[in-house]
Amino acid sequence: MTFDPCWLSGQRLPEVTIHASGALAQTIRAELRQTRRVRHDVEVALCTLGRLGETPLAAWVEQALPVDGLGDEGFVVVRRGNQLAVAAETGRGLLHGYFYLLRYFEWMTGDFTVVERPAFPVRMLAHWDDLDGSVERGYAGRSIFLRDGRVVQDLARVRAYARLLASVGLNAVVPNNVNVHAAETRLITDHLSDVARLAAVFREYGIAVHLAVNFAAPIELGDLDTADPLDPRVVRWWSAAAGRVYDAVPDLGGFVVKADSENRPGPAAYGRHHADGANLLARALAPYRGTVHWRCFVYDVQQDWRDRTADRARAAYDYFIPLDGLFDDNVVLQVKHGPLDFQAREAVSPLLGELQETPFALELQATQQYTGQQKDLCYLGPWWREILQFDTTGAGGPTVADRTEAVVAVANVGDDPNWTGHKLAQSNLYAYGRLAWDPAADPVSLLHEWAAATFAIDDRTRTELVEIMAGSWRTYERYTAPLGVGFMVTPGTHHGPSVNGSEYSASGTYHFADRYGVGVDRTVATGSGFTGQYPEPLAGRYENVCACPDELLLFFHHVPYDHVLQNGRTVLQHIYDTHFQGYDEVEAMLVRWKAIADRFDPASRDNITARLEGQLANAREWRDQVNTYFYRLSGVPDAAGRTIYR
Amino acid sequence: MTFDPCWLSGQRLPEVTIHASGALAQTIRAELRQTRRVRHDVEVALCTLGRLGETPLAAWVEQALPVDGLGDEGFVVVRRGNQLAVAAETGRGLLHGYFYLLRYFEWMTGDFTVVERPAFPVRMLAHWDDLDGSVERGYAGRSIFLRDGRVVQDLARVRAYARLLASVGLNAVVPNNVNVHAAETRLITDHLSDVARLAAVFREYGIAVHLAVNFAAPIELGDLDTADPLDPRVVRWWSAAAGRVYDAVPDLGGFVVKADSENRPGPAAYGRHHADGANLLARALAPYRGTVHWRCFVYDVQQDWRDRTADRARAAYDYFIPLDGLFDDNVVLQVKHGPLDFQAREAVSPLLGELQETPFALELQATQQYTGQQKDLCYLGPWWREILQFDTTGAGGPTVADRTEAVVAVANVGDDPNWTGHKLAQSNLYAYGRLAWDPAADPVSLLHEWAAATFAIDDRTRTELVEIMAGSWRTYERYTAPLGVGFMVTPGTHHGPSVNGSEYSASGTYHFADRYGVGVDRTVATGSGFTGQYPEPLAGRYENVCACPDELLLFFHHVPYDHVLQNGRTVLQHIYDTHFQGYDEVEAMLVRWKAIADRFDPASRDNITARLEGQLANAREWRDQVNTYFYRLSGVPDAAGRTIYR
Repeated sequence: MTFDPCWLSGQRLPEVTIHASGALAQTIRAELRQTRRVRHDVEVALCTLGRLGETPLAAWVEQALPVDGLGDEGFVVVRRGNQLAVAAETGRGLLHGYFYLLRYFEWMTGDFTVVERPAFPVRMLAHWDDLDGSVERGYAGRSIFLRDGRVVQDLARVRAYARLLASVGLNAVVPNNVNVHAAETRLITDHLSDVARLAAVFREYGIAVHLAVNFAAPIELGDLDTADPLDPRVVRWWSAAAGRVYDAVPDLGGFVVKADSENRPGPAAYGRHHADGANLLARALAPYRGTVHWRCFVYDVQQDWRDRTADRARAAYDYFIPLDGLFDDNVVLQVKHGPLDFQAREAVSPLLGELQETPFALELQATQQYTGQQKDLCYLGPWWREILQFDTTGAGGPTVADRTEAVVAVANVGDDPNWTGHKLAQSNLYAYGRLAWDPAADPVSLLHEWAAATFAIDDRTRTELVEIMAGSWRTYERYTAPLGVGFMVTPGTHHGPSVNGSEYSASGTYHFADRYGVGVDRTVATGSGFTGQYPEPLAGRYENVCACPDELLLFFHHVPYDHVLQNGRTVLQHIYDTHFQGYDEVEAMLVRWKAIADRFDPASRDNITARLEGQLANAREWRDQVNTYFYRLSGVPDAAGRTIYR
Repeated sequence: MTFDPCWLSGQRLPEVTIHASGALAQTIRAELRQTRRVRHDVEVALCTLGRLGETPLAAWVEQALPVDGLGDEGFVVVRRGNQLAVAAETGRGLLHGYFYLLRYFEWMTGDFTVVERPAFPVRMLAHWDDLDGSVERGYAGRSIFLRDGRVVQDLARVRAYARLLASVGLNAVVPNNVNVHAAETRLITDHLSDVARLAAVFREYGIAVHLAVNFAAPIELGDLDTADPLDPRVVRWWSAAAGRVYDAVPDLGGFVVKADSENRPGPAAYGRHHADGANLLARALAPYRGTVHWRCFVYDVQQDWRDRTADRARAAYDYFIPLDGLFDDNVVLQVKHGPLDFQAREAVSPLLGELQETPFALELQATQQYTGQQKDLCYLGPWWREILQFDTTGAGGPTVADRTEAVVAVANVGDDPNWTGHKLAQSNLYAYGRLAWDPAADPVSLLHEWAAATFAIDDRTRTELVEIMAGSWRTYERYTAPLGVGFMVTPGTHHGPSVNGSEYSASGTYHFADRYGVGVDRTVATGSGFTGQYPEPLAGRYENVCACPDELLLFFHHVPYDHVLQNGRTVLQHIYDTHFQGYDEVEAMLVRWKAIADRFDPASRDNITARLEGQLANAREWRDQVNTYFYRLSGVPDAAGRTIYR
């Protein structure tokens, strides 16, 4: 199978000397053999600290080192005149430095000193791949890891993928779905040698494999009739299982667990809480320094729509805050960015501010489940950066990035030749990796980096492409679900509009639109009380209908259609306006794209053109269905007299 | 596999003598060997005409014969004193007479003469079964005919099924789905010997097999690159195909075709019309006296919801009336009872009154696709009788039964032990057969017949059961879609409510509810003009919002919620009332059933109890979701103050 070399093709470097040893230094040497040489008057040295000898360069590097060191993955880059050094404490740091060099070399000018250390020690991509090769919520073909009931034999594409991840600074991967079904439960038994083969490939690039496991594995595998975390037989079972797994993969990152969530088994069946469950696995992994990523995506899957006091948004906080402090040190709680489910717009989860004792991971979603499914262009960099920089108190308190220990994203990659189905959706993979390293990175600059490394285009064309892409998340928000209204998407598929599709379901995702108004009252005063899960002054800001940010108004409040937003428009007119505007923006994207499309390779040109045309049709349905829906409810026409079908 | 002997178990007869010869007489002899004997002072003779000799009974039979004879399937029953004769011209007629005797013998008293002839020469059940064993819109397990890519080996259950059909007077069966996919296209090639095995079993019971065929079979089978009905190669292809089929099954009934409908291939691809397509096949079948059933279920599957002038209800008439007179004599146009799609309530198709030159079949649906899916009890006998007795002009003109040449129902049978999934849904199969023979039969009497033959229960229990069942169609209509509003059902599955599920789809099935009113304007004056497809005075009655029957008001008119119905209630209050009433009726059905459930065999008891409990939950969702939907739209509370969730 052929595939797109993605953003790692065509980069050029001058001659580089390496002063380092070990496996990752070998990887760098192999990388350098693949890199095209350019004649250049700069002499480049890659070295682990202390290996530069008594040169001036060594002194400059020494000066640049931060007092607390570079850590396991940091590196320093120093250029003076025609000499440039990349130095690190470890092979992993050096590999990151190598990719830094590859990424920026052609843009480097003059003398400079750069120190880079990742913001989070764990930067993970989680695949929702099953052994039969299918990918849950996958929009880019089938699994690159799994096929026909086993790990693929030919790991060439996996190796190319490991390179991609390393090149943007990621260091952890989960190859299998968090919904661990019967077949995948056997990844920790029958398939261990295959997992070891996968891990060996990722190890070359400094990336640790983690495995999603089934909490009920002792039962599923037929060994016990219980999975009770406090039963000594279960404790012994997991201890033995961990031993076998680490025999096969000594540097496995650990386990990822979705338990008592969306009908997956968990400790609740035995009257135990999540900490009991997580600690069971944590203690099995502790001898090997493995970590348990325990997901907090837990809610009542049988909510009664009739009960307006119930609120799925409350669930994760209500389940986990009482358990804060009860988890072992090697448990990481994995928290989705929002309290609902990876929406294009929702509030930031209060758990990310309020968990005090337990390390946690921020979970994002690169696969565009609710954000266009790689059919629609939706560059998520700005949204992720907004989440990472979110002020958890509303008063200059720590940001989400300050508080989180790890970042995870659900992967958007499959065996499509271009990796992501929509060529431009590669940018989400790229931006995720770079933001996971540096959560203050500018999303537009990241687009430039990605586009420059990906396409053989001139600067003006790249700037045009970046401008087409940069606002696409806000565009998507506009033509789908403005004001945080959420869940007007087709149930099940989660693509395309279905204005009332979830309104009477058990999913807990409602908008409560009626002839007078719309939105979910989550206030303490009159609603579900969800706003009370935030600290002050943030809680008060959300609670107050006049202070609540426009983009989250309907997430927190049920308001009449003539409620005037902070932007001066009524809620209804804003709904109309954004849907017209969103459609118009897609139309403009398509026009601008067509003007530059021929400057791209034919495969990219055809792929992007077809996707943008499909997006325009999708945006038209969203615009017309949502506008008609609210017109039928409100009876109020568009103030600008545009066509709303009756 | 075991299965319920259904309503053909336990019946008893006295000694019977047979004066007839031929294959069906053999069938009757075999039947009699299975019937339990009762001591009785009546001497019963079954005979073909002229075989009774010079007895008084023969004279009485002679007297009873109608002047135009009994025809191919009629029979006469004469009792005088202790002598009873069943006489017919043919073996088929005698078999019908035998089942008549079996059905009524224990209720017969005194002397009587009965002459029975079927109302329609063709009385068909159409299975939507595929070769892999799945059943499209099947709610009773998997196919009894097809499995694992071929016709089943063991035909014991097929034989039992042929008995069932014959016992209620049916005489034609289609074993395969009208949507003929690649595998099933080969039923007329690779599987012909298996089709012959099936036909042989049905032949024993006087039932003809018809086959659904793929209009594009010449292409699908790789023989030609066209299916153009006017291409001589295609003509020759079908002629040869028919020859092969009739070599294998000399008495095949003919072909059934769904063409240019819901993405099935047809003549339109070649610029030909339906008559071209139908006549192509009719001419291939003519040498063998075979018939083409050509379905009229044709409509635009890509309707734009924005266009309120388009109307799917118009489609069948608009396509077929201009072609009336162009079809060969052995074409039967197969017309669904309503212009939309087998709804619990919709108008009667105007084609059934307006086709003048072409014979047509009325198509009903025993499988409860839109009427509860054999999860909910919905006895359709009253609805079918209403359709059959529908006055096609509105002024004492011919009824649908008067005008139709054949009746077809989509079968509701699968390999569930009780045949129909819901035990009580057997009654729909039974009633369909009996109404196909006698469209004036009383649906409640049919229930008594069925229940008496099916359960070993006393008369009071039977009466109670019949009362529970008799009104269940109207109950289902009440809690789902009153006033002909239609299509608030979940798209795709067609079970359970989805108030706006089709409202913005391409399916052409809308209700256009907004804050002011609801319904589809199909008038000539201001709407789609569909009412104009009916003759006067019917057209005028439907056109006039004050004269239109309440139960079809929203099918024909868009009215404000405060429009007052002929029953004196507002539309909105009627919607609320019927949904509350429908739910209450299901609750009462369940209570009444539980009081008698223990008098039934355990399998029936448990099956029926579980289904009724599920129905109550379903009715609750319908009631609450529909009521809340209209309350949110209208803002008007229930006049009786019952709970409508906001």
